[in-house]
Amino acid sequence: MKKSNKTGPEIIEINEKIMKANDQLAAENHQKFVASKIKGVFNLISSPGAGKTTLLEKIAPQLSSCGVIEGDIATARDAERLFALSIPVVQINTMGACHLDASMIAQVRDDFPFDQVDYLFIENVGNLVCPTVYDLGEDHKIVVLSLPEGADKPVKYPAIFRKASICVINKLDLEPYCGVDLQQLKTDIYEVNPN
Amino acid sequence: MKKSNKTGPEIIEINEKIMKANDQLAAENHQKFVASKIKGVFNLISSPGAGKTTLLEKIAPQLSSCGVIEGDIATARDAERLFALSIPVVQINTMGACHLDASMIAQVRDDFPFDQVDYLFIENVGNLVCPTVYDLGEDHKIVVLSLPEGADKPVKYPAIFRKASICVINKLDLEPYCGVDLQQLKTDIYEVNPN
Repeated sequence: MKKSNKTGPEIIEINEKIMKANDQLAAENHQKFVASKIKGVFNLISSPGAGKTTLLEKIAPQLSSCGVIEGDIATARDAERLFALSIPVVQINTMGACHLDASMIAQVRDDFPFDQVDYLFIENVGNLVCPTVYDLGEDHKIVVLSLPEGADKPVKYPAIFRKASICVINKLDLEPYCGVDLQQLKTDIYEVNPN
Repeated sequence: MKKSNKTGPEIIEINEKIMKANDQLAAENHQKFVASKIKGVFNLISSPGAGKTTLLEKIAPQLSSCGVIEGDIATARDAERLFALSIPVVQINTMGACHLDASMIAQVRDDFPFDQVDYLFIENVGNLVCPTVYDLGEDHKIVVLSLPEGADKPVKYPAIFRKASICVINKLDLEPYCGVDLQQLKTDIYEVNPN
């Protein structure tokens, strides 16, 4: 079922304009990342509470050097957790917006010490839908799925699983208790994205 | 940090038009619900995989009669699960859209047997952000939070916790394994919404 014609066409028109502006800014962000000689830029996308920040807390100490751009609707709690690791962290509060867009990244382009990090992680707003659409200038999207969310997420939210280069299945230690079929989940992920 | 001026004003203008059209259709939906003598209409909102469908599977047999409108980006898996309970169920596939809006509900207004149910549940797309904004004509919003998502969700996604009349904390049986402080969670919920 599609949206009614009453609002549909207007949304589409404006969306095209917004996406074009976003893509232009994303390309500029990407140029900045390349000029700063960053080896890899990753856009982390997941449902709320899937464990993006905890994953970064585990990954950061393993890397030569990395930095994080934190996106949240409200609070700086995640940024504070990562700041404790003594890595460059900047917090973007989206003021209600359901995703980061390239313009928000562009606003920190001149202040963040990109040339001091080998890897950059951009932690998006917790939302499995909207952040999928907005390129930020990253090299790869990473989707993080928490096992208790259930095995049916890849087929119910296929877009992000198609666009992501990497899928992390998190909270595996809850497998014995949450009744989710890990094999079914893996099968469904490969069905949506064989690569 | 706000959106750049390049795209900002356009979004706001159109959003106002869309919200006005949505509110008008939501009011018409509400009139239909009242005319059908439904005792309560509930809009269920949560992250993906928080357990909205499972909750409905448990609630439905306890009620005199109920019906469900299922919103999903893709698949009819949830609707099929509820159809097995022999209650009226209709599936709305949003074709990528991150939320249900009032126009989508309006499209099933003439077909769904509203006058045969005492309670109507509308299961929104799994998304803790965008569905908050769009009234559908419901009496109450219910937010479902899965315990493994973590205690910080009410302060990080405050809008839905402010707007909801009911908050269901789900997957409590995972409390011993997921290290989430249930008391802290309850404290944060009441901080965001004392009612």
